[in-house]
Amino acid sequence: MNIEIKNILAIRPRESGDAKLEKTDVYIQGNKIAAIGKAPEGFAAEKTIDGTDRILTPGLINCHTHSYMSFMRNVADDLAFMDWLFGRVDPIEQKMTDEDAYWGACLAILEMMKSGTSCFNDMQMNICQTTKAVKESGMRAVICRGLVGSGNDEAGQSRLHQAYEERDAFADCDRLSFRLGPHAPYTCDEAFLRIVAEEAKKNGMGIHMHLSESRTEIENCRKDYGCSPIELAERTGLFELPFIAAHCVQIDDKDMDILKKHDVSVVTNPASNMKLGNGFAPVPEMLKRGINVCVGTDGAASNNSLNLIHEMSLLALIHKGTHLDPQCVSAEEVFRMATVNGAKALGLEAEIGAIEVGKKADLAIFKQKCPSMWPRNNPVAAFSYSANGSECESMIIDGEVTMENGKVLTMDEERILFETEKIMERIGR
Amino acid sequence: MNIEIKNILAIRPRESGDAKLEKTDVYIQGNKIAAIGKAPEGFAAEKTIDGTDRILTPGLINCHTHSYMSFMRNVADDLAFMDWLFGRVDPIEQKMTDEDAYWGACLAILEMMKSGTSCFNDMQMNICQTTKAVKESGMRAVICRGLVGSGNDEAGQSRLHQAYEERDAFADCDRLSFRLGPHAPYTCDEAFLRIVAEEAKKNGMGIHMHLSESRTEIENCRKDYGCSPIELAERTGLFELPFIAAHCVQIDDKDMDILKKHDVSVVTNPASNMKLGNGFAPVPEMLKRGINVCVGTDGAASNNSLNLIHEMSLLALIHKGTHLDPQCVSAEEVFRMATVNGAKALGLEAEIGAIEVGKKADLAIFKQKCPSMWPRNNPVAAFSYSANGSECESMIIDGEVTMENGKVLTMDEERILFETEKIMERIGR
Repeated sequence: MNIEIKNILAIRPRESGDAKLEKTDVYIQGNKIAAIGKAPEGFAAEKTIDGTDRILTPGLINCHTHSYMSFMRNVADDLAFMDWLFGRVDPIEQKMTDEDAYWGACLAILEMMKSGTSCFNDMQMNICQTTKAVKESGMRAVICRGLVGSGNDEAGQSRLHQAYEERDAFADCDRLSFRLGPHAPYTCDEAFLRIVAEEAKKNGMGIHMHLSESRTEIENCRKDYGCSPIELAERTGLFELPFIAAHCVQIDDKDMDILKKHDVSVVTNPASNMKLGNGFAPVPEMLKRGINVCVGTDGAASNNSLNLIHEMSLLALIHKGTHLDPQCVSAEEVFRMATVNGAKALGLEAEIGAIEVGKKADLAIFKQKCPSMWPRNNPVAAFSYSANGSECESMIIDGEVTMENGKVLTMDEERILFETEKIMERIGR
Repeated sequence: MNIEIKNILAIRPRESGDAKLEKTDVYIQGNKIAAIGKAPEGFAAEKTIDGTDRILTPGLINCHTHSYMSFMRNVADDLAFMDWLFGRVDPIEQKMTDEDAYWGACLAILEMMKSGTSCFNDMQMNICQTTKAVKESGMRAVICRGLVGSGNDEAGQSRLHQAYEERDAFADCDRLSFRLGPHAPYTCDEAFLRIVAEEAKKNGMGIHMHLSESRTEIENCRKDYGCSPIELAERTGLFELPFIAAHCVQIDDKDMDILKKHDVSVVTNPASNMKLGNGFAPVPEMLKRGINVCVGTDGAASNNSLNLIHEMSLLALIHKGTHLDPQCVSAEEVFRMATVNGAKALGLEAEIGAIEVGKKADLAIFKQKCPSMWPRNNPVAAFSYSANGSECESMIIDGEVTMENGKVLTMDEERILFETEKIMERIGR
C-alpha cells in the first residue's frame, strides 16, 4: 500500500553520533520507505497519516526475549534463582501445550507492538507456534531454536535438525529469519557446542546464546572447562558465526577483547539482570571498546514486561548510578542501542533500524503532545527518560499498518487475553 | 457525592506484611470511604463505577518533587551536575514568572494524576502558584516553602514568614497542608537551620529537606561543620519536628541510627539519584532498621518523569542488582512505600494511603485487562514490575472523581499543554 505520513517529527538515528531530527513527510511504497521530504514521482497515497504533534522513530528492536513465557508474568517474583526456575517457571512450562505457546507468543507480540517494538529476537524450545504468531501478526522476528544437549545426545541433535525444518516451513515469510539458539554453557556441553558451530556453518545460520549471566555460571564453567563462558564459546568455533550473546554481565577485560575481536553483538537485559540478582553488565566499557551493544527485555517471567521503552530508561539510568557519572550512557547511545545497533546484531542493518530511503518501512509513531512527553524539549531524551511506552499510537511493519490509534489491527486482543488467562487458570495457579 | 465501585479487585496495603487482595465493592460518602463489601444502611449511589477487570489501589503518594519544574523535562540531560544546575536549570528558573510556575505545576499534576498519584509533597520557592493549581485540580498536596539563607539573612527570614502567610491564605482547602522546606545543608547555614527549627516548633509545622544527596555535599559538610548532614540536622533541633528527608544516598550506619532514633521518614528518589550520578540510597538497610522509607520522583528536570509507577519499578529492581540478591526489596515492600509509608511520612496516615473505612477516598483505578498487566497473576508484583502507569483509568481524590476513563475532569489538558510549550519557547530554547 502507498502510505504517506505528513508533517511528523522524525528521529533518524545514525550509526554513530546524535540522531538527526527533522519535521518531514515520509512516503512508503510496498514494504519500503520510498522517499523522505518529497513524494516520489507519480506517488498516489492510498492512506495518509497526520503526523502533527507526533514523533516517528524506527520500530524498536527487542534483541532478546522468550516470547511465549508472557503468561508467566508475575508468577515468580522476589525469589532466589533456583526457586524461581525450578519451583515456579519450570513446572508451568512442563505443563504447557503447543496451543499455550501460540497464545503466549500472541500476548507477547501484542505487548511489544503496543509499546513501539517492530522486531524481536526470540529464543524458544517450541518455535513453530511463535513463528506462526509472528507470521499472522505482521511482526518481524528472528526465531532462535533453543538447544540443550551433550555431544552424544540424540535428542539434542534431533532438535538441531528440527530447526532447519522449521526454518524451511516458514521460508515464504520474509519477516522471519532463523538462528540456532544453544541455550547456555551450563545446558550444552563443549562437544555439543562444537557440533552446533559446525552445523550452523554448513546451514548458513547465525547463533544466539546466553553467556556469562550469573556468577554461578562463571564459577561452574571455570571448574568444568578451565575458562570463562566467553572463552569456551570462542574455542568451540561459535564466534566464527554471526553471534548475539545475551547478558554478558559477569565479564572481564579479556572477555571483552574476545567479543570485540570476533565482532560479537551483546544484548543487555538490565531489568532481568537486576531482578534475578545477577547485577549490571559493563555496558559503558563495552561501548567504549566499540562492541555492538543492543537491548532486550528477556522473558516476562524474569522482567516482567516486554516494553522496550522501560528497558531503555533503565539502561540510561543504572550505569550513571553504578559509575557515579551523569554522563555515562547517554540518551543518544540508548536510542542507537534500541534501533541501529539492534538491527546490526540481527544482521538486518541493511533493512531495518533506521529511517532511510530504501529501508523496510518498520516505523513507530508516538504521541508527543501528552503530559509524559511534553513540552517539546529534547525528544531523544524523552524516549530514554520520560516515555512509558503507552505513547505509541500506530505501528507500520514491513509497510503494513499493524496498529492504528492504539488498536492492533492484525490480532484479536480480546481473544488473546481470554486464552492466556485460561492457560494460567489451568496450569499456573 | 455517593459513589459505589462495584466488583473490583482491591489491593489493600497494610503497615506491615503483604497487602490484602479482595474482590469487593467500595462505597464512598462525601470525601470518605463509608463501607467496603456491604453498602451502608440507606446508601443511595449517585454514581456507580464498574470495577470488572480493574484494580483498586490507594492513590499513590509522591513524597518528593518540585512540581513547577515540569516544563524543564528533557532540557538538561547527560550533563555533569554543575552544568546541569548552573548551565541549564538555573538560567531557565531565573526567567520564570509566577504564571509560568502555575502552568508548570498544572502540567505536573496532570502527569501525576494520569499515572495514579493522588498526593504529592512539593518543595518550591514559589509555592502560591502550586497551591492554587492543587486547589483547582482536586489534587492533594503537602506544600513545602523552599528556604535558603544564613542566620543574618533578612531575605531568608522574610521567606519564612511568607510561608505562614501562604499557609493561612489557603486554610480553607483541607487537601492542602504546609511544611517548611529548608533546602539543604549547602544552601542554609547552621544558624539559619536553628532559626527554622524554632520557627517550625512555634508554628506547628513539619520539615522537608534535601539531605545527603551527593558526595560533594558530605565532603563540604564535614569540612564546614565537622559532621555529616544528618548529624548537622540533628544538632540544629530539626529532627525534633516531623521530618521528611529527601535522598539520603550517602549515609552510614551512624546516620541511619540517628534517622531511626528521631523517627525521620526518608524519601528515596531512585531515578534522580542515578541520573545525576549520585548512586543508590541504602534502602534495604534502612528498611531493615525499621526506618519509614517512602518514594518520590524528584522534579522533572532531574528524572525526567513524575510517574511514580516508574519509580516503583526502579525501586524493586536496582537494589536486587546492587546487592546481587533477587529477594532484596520486594514488590510488597515497594507497594507499601508508595502508599502507607508515604502517608506516614506526610503525617497523613490517619487519612490516606490505605483502603479502609473512615479514610479519605483517595483511590486509583487501574485496568487489569490489558497486555502489560495480564494474565491475572500477582497484581502487587504487576505494579512493581509490569505496569507503566498508563493503565490508570480513573482517579478519586477526597471523594471527587478527578479523572474518568483516562480523562482528567478537573483540568484543561489542552490549555496546559499549550501554555507550557509557550513558556519553553519564550525562556527555554
